[in-house]
Amino acid sequence: MAVVSESPQPSGRPARVLTGYRPTGPLHVGHWFGNIQSMLELQRTHDAFFFVADWHALTTDFDRTERLPGNIRELVLDWLAAGIDPQQATVYLQSHVSEVAELTLLLGMITPLGWLERVPTYKERLRDLAEREIANYGLLGYPVLQTVDIVIVRGEVVPVGEDQVAHLELAREIVRRFNGLYGEILVEPQAMLSETPRIPGTDGRKMSSSLGNDIRINDEPDVMRKKASSMVTDPQKIRLGDPGRPEICPVFALHQKFSPDILVETEAGCRAGTLGCVKCKQNLGERLVAHFGPFQERRRALDPSAADDVLAAGRDKVRPVVEQTMKDVRSAMHLTT
Amino acid sequence: MAVVSESPQPSGRPARVLTGYRPTGPLHVGHWFGNIQSMLELQRTHDAFFFVADWHALTTDFDRTERLPGNIRELVLDWLAAGIDPQQATVYLQSHVSEVAELTLLLGMITPLGWLERVPTYKERLRDLAEREIANYGLLGYPVLQTVDIVIVRGEVVPVGEDQVAHLELAREIVRRFNGLYGEILVEPQAMLSETPRIPGTDGRKMSSSLGNDIRINDEPDVMRKKASSMVTDPQKIRLGDPGRPEICPVFALHQKFSPDILVETEAGCRAGTLGCVKCKQNLGERLVAHFGPFQERRRALDPSAADDVLAAGRDKVRPVVEQTMKDVRSAMHLTT
Repeated sequence: MAVVSESPQPSGRPARVLTGYRPTGPLHVGHWFGNIQSMLELQRTHDAFFFVADWHALTTDFDRTERLPGNIRELVLDWLAAGIDPQQATVYLQSHVSEVAELTLLLGMITPLGWLERVPTYKERLRDLAEREIANYGLLGYPVLQTVDIVIVRGEVVPVGEDQVAHLELAREIVRRFNGLYGEILVEPQAMLSETPRIPGTDGRKMSSSLGNDIRINDEPDVMRKKASSMVTDPQKIRLGDPGRPEICPVFALHQKFSPDILVETEAGCRAGTLGCVKCKQNLGERLVAHFGPFQERRRALDPSAADDVLAAGRDKVRPVVEQTMKDVRSAMHLTT
Repeated sequence: MAVVSESPQPSGRPARVLTGYRPTGPLHVGHWFGNIQSMLELQRTHDAFFFVADWHALTTDFDRTERLPGNIRELVLDWLAAGIDPQQATVYLQSHVSEVAELTLLLGMITPLGWLERVPTYKERLRDLAEREIANYGLLGYPVLQTVDIVIVRGEVVPVGEDQVAHLELAREIVRRFNGLYGEILVEPQAMLSETPRIPGTDGRKMSSSLGNDIRINDEPDVMRKKASSMVTDPQKIRLGDPGRPEICPVFALHQKFSPDILVETEAGCRAGTLGCVKCKQNLGERLVAHFGPFQERRRALDPSAADDVLAAGRDKVRPVVEQTMKDVRSAMHLTT
């Protein structure tokens, strides 16, 4: 998710941006470009809040929570090794902020069911996960929980891809309804339009863990090489000498990300037929290994307890922000006694 | 709600019973017999937990929360004046237990929407309140919140009227689903079947604040007398001398509750036509005033701050119970980090 627009505040102070990720398993190359690079830019340009959305993970993974603690730790360690700096950004765990649940309950009381039922991703997820009896109350309420994630820390901008615009619009509607009922308490977040790079997996479809076509950022070098070698290429290029079409080849799409210095010769060799796919994929494998080598080295050097330390510190850092919001909310709703 | 059956525990210790009421306005004679008398009995026979369900009040009253603080205080003062003893029972405010929101979020993740949509009272309330754009997410989730109220304090028995049997069955289903997924953590509550006395209002329909036909337990004596005098009676009994039918007369229904010592002569006089409705209603007014006099006197003697003190003490009393439940729940769901 590359940031393509920014919303500097009139005051000149950096705007508060919020983004969270569900700890549902190992990160792959798609996440590397879609999430991590965006976070690195945001922590430089904004007052960045990054959180691990463990409660959100329950909307689909409620029946395999035994993986959660490991997934949370791995995700935070990945962030640290990739360069996320808890001194610059506020990094925390959603479930450490119990007030998120309280505000979700409160905002749920003023959120019409119709608003939730018309969210496009809700129906998609219902369809995708139909076989797992997934149409739970919490899944329908996902956008309410998302709204709370944003407003409880007074997030001003939220990076969203095209498919998430409807979610942010819903968050804004809920905020407007709340403020209309109880006074101008919550900040209406702005969308920061972003472009999600389309990273193909080994089979040419969008890279995705659930499709089994992903190259993971923590794959061993030999696994990376093997996955690169197993990638599909232009089906018309069958043997060395056949001319290929880089524009439809998933291997070339990854070269564009990882091999800027040999991009011209790769494209020319492919079109001319002088570069065979086997060699081209070997090149990609080496580039992947080289690209992720320093990251993996930093990752190995981290004590696993670093994740817990970061989340504990983040909890302390986010607490005063959350407490102020909840004080204002409870008071506006006459819930203080 | 008179208790008609009890569930003593095999151990001989009193079972933990839970009941809560929404602070939506002044109590009337229907509440006096339906709720208060039941609570007085429960605190004698059980390990009783009584809570003020302020979050539940939001499901319908989210747009008039300014009344909440007063309603909460009035309700607790009514309870105290009626004889609820915070030394015997645990009396607390729902929103003082923030973990209720957390567990509601968690149980919502495993509660199928279909279970909630088929709750009969949900559809009824939708119909009743259609004009107020009330079909909010929180209203649909009402039974999840109710389930949490019970299980978070490990309630063993819950007094339910016939119309609430479906709610308790749903609570049991949610508990079974949770325990099936995560282990035997939550206590499956038992229904304590109870009979709700049908108290007629001044117009003969069921007494209800929203119908404007209620006689309030804190009405001034003159207001009580006036309301009694305004009651409808047997429409065939038009003037003194006409024989009446006590079995269809709402005034007689109230005499049955308030006037045991003159019940025989009231019934005979009505049937014979020798007792006129004006006199009969005057009698009822005096009985009401006499019945509620001592209660109102105790009520006036209470310092309003007594309500806050009781709820603060209740919060401390309920906290260790709740914390133990949440510790067990988070651990079973692998949410401890």
